[in-house]
Amino acid sequence: MVNVMNKKRNAEKIAQELADIFAKTAAKRDAAGGTAKEERELIRQSGLLKLLIPAEYGGLGGDWQDVLNVVKIFAKVDSSLAHLYGYHFVNLTTPHLTGSEKQKEYYYRITAEKNYFWGNAFNPVDMRLKARKEGDKYILNGIKTFCSGSVDSDFLVVSSIFEGKEEPLLAVIPTNRIGITVNNDWNNFGQRQTDSGSIHFDEVVVEENEIMQKGFNHSEFSKIRMNISSFILNHLYLGIAEGALEAAVNYTRTQTRPRSPHFPRAVDDPVIQHQYGQLLTQLEAAKLLVEKSDIIFQKTWNAGETVTEKERKELETATNIAKVFTIKAGLDITSRMFDLMGSRATSNAYGFDRFWRNLRTMSLHVPVDITAQELGRNLLFNE
Amino acid sequence: MVNVMNKKRNAEKIAQELADIFAKTAAKRDAAGGTAKEERELIRQSGLLKLLIPAEYGGLGGDWQDVLNVVKIFAKVDSSLAHLYGYHFVNLTTPHLTGSEKQKEYYYRITAEKNYFWGNAFNPVDMRLKARKEGDKYILNGIKTFCSGSVDSDFLVVSSIFEGKEEPLLAVIPTNRIGITVNNDWNNFGQRQTDSGSIHFDEVVVEENEIMQKGFNHSEFSKIRMNISSFILNHLYLGIAEGALEAAVNYTRTQTRPRSPHFPRAVDDPVIQHQYGQLLTQLEAAKLLVEKSDIIFQKTWNAGETVTEKERKELETATNIAKVFTIKAGLDITSRMFDLMGSRATSNAYGFDRFWRNLRTMSLHVPVDITAQELGRNLLFNE
Amino acid sequence: MVNVMNKKRNAEKIAQELADIFAKTAAKRDAAGGTAKEERELIRQSGLLKLLIPAEYGGLGGDWQDVLNVVKIFAKVDSSLAHLYGYHFVNLTTPHLTGSEKQKEYYYRITAEKNYFWGNAFNPVDMRLKARKEGDKYILNGIKTFCSGSVDSDFLVVSSIFEGKEEPLLAVIPTNRIGITVNNDWNNFGQRQTDSGSIHFDEVVVEENEIMQKGFNHSEFSKIRMNISSFILNHLYLGIAEGALEAAVNYTRTQTRPRSPHFPRAVDDPVIQHQYGQLLTQLEAAKLLVEKSDIIFQKTWNAGETVTEKERKELETATNIAKVFTIKAGLDITSRMFDLMGSRATSNAYGFDRFWRNLRTMSLHVPVDITAQELGRNLLFNE
Amino acid sequence: MVNVMNKKRNAEKIAQELADIFAKTAAKRDAAGGTAKEERELIRQSGLLKLLIPAEYGGLGGDWQDVLNVVKIFAKVDSSLAHLYGYHFVNLTTPHLTGSEKQKEYYYRITAEKNYFWGNAFNPVDMRLKARKEGDKYILNGIKTFCSGSVDSDFLVVSSIFEGKEEPLLAVIPTNRIGITVNNDWNNFGQRQTDSGSIHFDEVVVEENEIMQKGFNHSEFSKIRMNISSFILNHLYLGIAEGALEAAVNYTRTQTRPRSPHFPRAVDDPVIQHQYGQLLTQLEAAKLLVEKSDIIFQKTWNAGETVTEKERKELETATNIAKVFTIKAGLDITSRMFDLMGSRATSNAYGFDRFWRNLRTMSLHVPVDITAQELGRNLLFNE
Repeated sequence: MVNVMNKKRNAEKIAQELADIFAKTAAKRDAAGGTAKEERELIRQSGLLKLLIPAEYGGLGGDWQDVLNVVKIFAKVDSSLAHLYGYHFVNLTTPHLTGSEKQKEYYYRITAEKNYFWGNAFNPVDMRLKARKEGDKYILNGIKTFCSGSVDSDFLVVSSIFEGKEEPLLAVIPTNRIGITVNNDWNNFGQRQTDSGSIHFDEVVVEENEIMQKGFNHSEFSKIRMNISSFILNHLYLGIAEGALEAAVNYTRTQTRPRSPHFPRAVDDPVIQHQYGQLLTQLEAAKLLVEKSDIIFQKTWNAGETVTEKERKELETATNIAKVFTIKAGLDITSRMFDLMGSRATSNAYGFDRFWRNLRTMSLHVPVDITAQELGRNLLFNE
Repeated sequence: MVNVMNKKRNAEKIAQELADIFAKTAAKRDAAGGTAKEERELIRQSGLLKLLIPAEYGGLGGDWQDVLNVVKIFAKVDSSLAHLYGYHFVNLTTPHLTGSEKQKEYYYRITAEKNYFWGNAFNPVDMRLKARKEGDKYILNGIKTFCSGSVDSDFLVVSSIFEGKEEPLLAVIPTNRIGITVNNDWNNFGQRQTDSGSIHFDEVVVEENEIMQKGFNHSEFSKIRMNISSFILNHLYLGIAEGALEAAVNYTRTQTRPRSPHFPRAVDDPVIQHQYGQLLTQLEAAKLLVEKSDIIFQKTWNAGETVTEKERKELETATNIAKVFTIKAGLDITSRMFDLMGSRATSNAYGFDRFWRNLRTMSLHVPVDITAQELGRNLLFNE
Repeated sequence: MVNVMNKKRNAEKIAQELADIFAKTAAKRDAAGGTAKEERELIRQSGLLKLLIPAEYGGLGGDWQDVLNVVKIFAKVDSSLAHLYGYHFVNLTTPHLTGSEKQKEYYYRITAEKNYFWGNAFNPVDMRLKARKEGDKYILNGIKTFCSGSVDSDFLVVSSIFEGKEEPLLAVIPTNRIGITVNNDWNNFGQRQTDSGSIHFDEVVVEENEIMQKGFNHSEFSKIRMNISSFILNHLYLGIAEGALEAAVNYTRTQTRPRSPHFPRAVDDPVIQHQYGQLLTQLEAAKLLVEKSDIIFQKTWNAGETVTEKERKELETATNIAKVFTIKAGLDITSRMFDLMGSRATSNAYGFDRFWRNLRTMSLHVPVDITAQELGRNLLFNE
Repeated sequence: MVNVMNKKRNAEKIAQELADIFAKTAAKRDAAGGTAKEERELIRQSGLLKLLIPAEYGGLGGDWQDVLNVVKIFAKVDSSLAHLYGYHFVNLTTPHLTGSEKQKEYYYRITAEKNYFWGNAFNPVDMRLKARKEGDKYILNGIKTFCSGSVDSDFLVVSSIFEGKEEPLLAVIPTNRIGITVNNDWNNFGQRQTDSGSIHFDEVVVEENEIMQKGFNHSEFSKIRMNISSFILNHLYLGIAEGALEAAVNYTRTQTRPRSPHFPRAVDDPVIQHQYGQLLTQLEAAKLLVEKSDIIFQKTWNAGETVTEKERKELETATNIAKVFTIKAGLDITSRMFDLMGSRATSNAYGFDRFWRNLRTMSLHVPVDITAQELGRNLLFNE
């Protein structure tokens, strides 16, 4: 059991123990797809789902850096589980950012007590889920897609169109609420165990106190919910790239065949060394960009409702730069690594292609070209 | 039935008809892996297996360009079948290149007559298959890996170590010869229906007249067998890249969501256009490099035993340049295409990741870095 | 003296002799800038200025391929002179494309007879040169910039705004016409001896028969004037890249210091070899793309007034693809070459930076991004 | 006059004032080459030459970060002066690293008092300078090349071969010592005012107390002299890249012509924005890599003689990664910037090509390929 007093050291240690377990079946579960029931249960039992919850609400009182370390540790071997774990906190902190003080406390407490796993029905691009009001209740009908982490979740963050209001209605409800059907229909080539499928809502009742009172736009602080998801994904991208490079180095050391009689071992081959040096350089740059955004993010988070627009924009820029760079570096590493390993590394016994597939899938969340263009526009217009 | 008199037009037409059929199940069969029994049977029935066989031996009298067109047509939708088809000719022409006149004729005739499909047990890096002589027969024992096209083949080109000789013993035998066990154990992340698994040989008897009389090194002509496989793979790489870009363009036209209110359709987006222009440029360059090697290859082939070392080297250089470029361009296209399509294109309903997986797997055949280095060395030393 | 009967062989031979002379002073003249009087005079005397002029008009009857070979031969050592020589033909063929039959003949004949060198005052972006009509004459006043080849030219192709007409007025007049002041004010970091400065026009009289009768837009054939300049520039880019790679190879062979005790000569260094292989691959691809456009261009030229829009578009696409690729490859080669030569290669005794400076300057003629975007748009919209 | 008490703020302020002065003539002086006498004198007078010297010796007591800030401020507008200024400290700290305590103090004090400018005759690859012993003196004869900052310097760090010893003899002597001829013969295409020419030594007498007592290899601390120069160069590379991007942004904002009727200003063009976003991302990554090495370096420096091999290696790795990345990013930025500015930006009135020329020249100091290969080798061999 994780001890609150020395949470940080323990969180990493426990995360690494779990990662070692996950690693054993990662390639196989990637092939199978579907829900990682057992692994999700291990995460629940580990206590890591309450890592960020303040101690006063029964949590472990960790900070975001603790959470992100776990995300990266998971991502190196299984970016689906890392995704689920990271997004759990995007969802779990939604009441903190957009709800009342009471809602924040309620959801933190119950999650800490029961080790609840959070999912979402949130995708803002899909606008087919609609709410109507009946008395003091809201009734939801429709469908949402890309509902990551929905299967086997305990709570759902739900966003729906509410007639007459521009901002979507934001609610948090138990996944087992009557009328909710979570479909097990995620079948994409990457992030295969993220359960990012669809949810049907059929006359689902939402109470007034399940509606987030403040919403997304009431302050700069609430708006950072958008930044958080982009920010967490960066750690996922980085973890994948790190995991891939480690796997490649390890393979080249132990299995890659020599390519020239001059160099009896692949590790002695100058061309192979030269390319590993280039990949390492890219990875190190990605790390520092992500770290920089970490520091800014923690500062922003700590500032809470006093965050200014300028500070949030600074976070956004740092996150965007880290995103553009890390995706590019990661795609390069996860594809070129095979040139440095050789043809036998394509065996499904290793499952090394999942690094590229996972990164390629996840990195399309918001097109990286849009982000790069936005960075350029800001550079040209600001100052 | 393909008519010899107008073979060329018909070959392309029939290949395209087959490709259209293959396309329908390509993503599904890629997921399943294993042997494409039905599709192989369709190829057999089409007569395309004898496309290159001279008319005097009952073939269709096509030239290599005809064969390569078919390889590319197949590769655009199913690079496993393209591989099997292309390598069929690498194997089928082995007696032509390395056997006696009589052997060449025998194997051409029987293949044309029965529409035989050829595979191999050839991988020169794997040296565990050994031959011994007993009387005027040879007895094979051991194992070969990476035996592309072996399952469901009719003939096998077999290379084995023969004690006391430096050059491997080269034989062509029926796949169903007693003692041969073709294992269905190819399970890699790309080229999944190429049956590139292992074969066990247990006291397999080979007759003297099944041994290629001249071997690989008797002339510059026989040596081009090595060039042919590298050369055919280039058409595979190119076909994959072409198929990928076509699929992407089609998807962007019909399904990609607009990214900005300024451009109501994705096809109007300047950044998307700009990147498609870059990918097209790369693809066009790859095409011309492959075409150039085609012309040199056909000339080399036509020259037969009169080919000089200089001519073969010229072919090798052209093939190597085309290889280095096409792989690089293809990996770029098959990975960046997703940025231009968007996240929903990662659905397994499309199977678009197979372009990258197939190319990535196949392009490790001989490491591209070795080839690039060789080109540079030749540039620096020759004049 | 160049003989019409075997012009082609001689043209290349003479061009190479001139190039050898130019090479000796290329670095020095690049540093000095200004007009290459002596070298221009050598070109005049060589007869190469009438290479393309049909024999019936007193020319050498060469085709475009002959001209382009000379452009490339010059460009490898001195891209300023290559530019002047190539653009001479863009200008010289303007009457052929846009004038009457009589004008075409007149300008061909007099140029062939006197070895005239053509320049221009054409830049369509600069719209400060204006024409008015007085009786049957036109009077020009104003200024033009980027007037390549204007200093020391004999004829000028002049484009000016003519009130009430959308299409600019196009004239060919002697450079020494009263009222014309050719300013020696080109001082940019590349293409330093192209005299691409400004010209002032002060009440310059143009006769009716000096106005091109048909103009640019009367047919698809006349429109190809635009394609020709872009097309000729591709040969310049290619020549620069070829010249750079040759220079680098030669330097590495003879002067680059070894970088490792394992490889006593730089040419043995695997990393250096590997990178030369990559640069060679890019250069070869550029060559083939330019060659393809050559073939299409010659066909288009030969078709004359029967050229269709589709054919001209095909030329445009091939030229654009060649342009985008060759510039990218060339910039890469002219910058990375120094990594393969070493620090002492930056000495001004060699002038190796001029390859990059010339290419960088010239390649901004029409921004390559516009061209790439246009290619992508066409790909997305056409079938 | 710079005040010790608030040195840091003032150092940056004074450096910026100087940079503003340098900027006005940077393009012109780049064209002229030779020695920047006036500017060197301004640096002398500013007191910045003693910025790093501890207050106890009469210096300003700044740390390396202060020095590096000045290097970067200078490098953005004039990387020759930045080079001279940065290398001044590489040379000035040589007694600190490799001399006795007394030598360290002597050279610090006299430099602080007289605002001496240091140069070198150090190039370890050039081994033609030799020392012999006569009594208790050393006599130097021969030549050294690449002697950056030698012209107009007050002290020289001199390295010479001393028969019978493996390690070169390391001395610090006044530049005006009899027998020294500093040749004004640096004429390379970049870093044109670094006076990196040759020095002749003709029977130059060196006293025993001018010989560095400990030499390079007596400890890990003394060995970091090698790391310092590589480390300072990174700030030069970064400064050049920053200066280039700033110049480009400013030009695009104010002068670049629109490229499409859809976007009346160049800054609105999506493709231009997209590319600026990519360049910014690269620059930001370079900054963080350089910053990371700063932190490690200052720590290493502060540790002094207690530095361990592991710590020095960590510094080396960080410096090498920053080097490989920053050079690549910088070369990309300084070349692609022209695509975003347009053809008129090639005018020598701006001198924008000097960013590429300076970076290209300087970045060949130790070939970046060697560094990348070393990084890869370390990655493959270390844990």
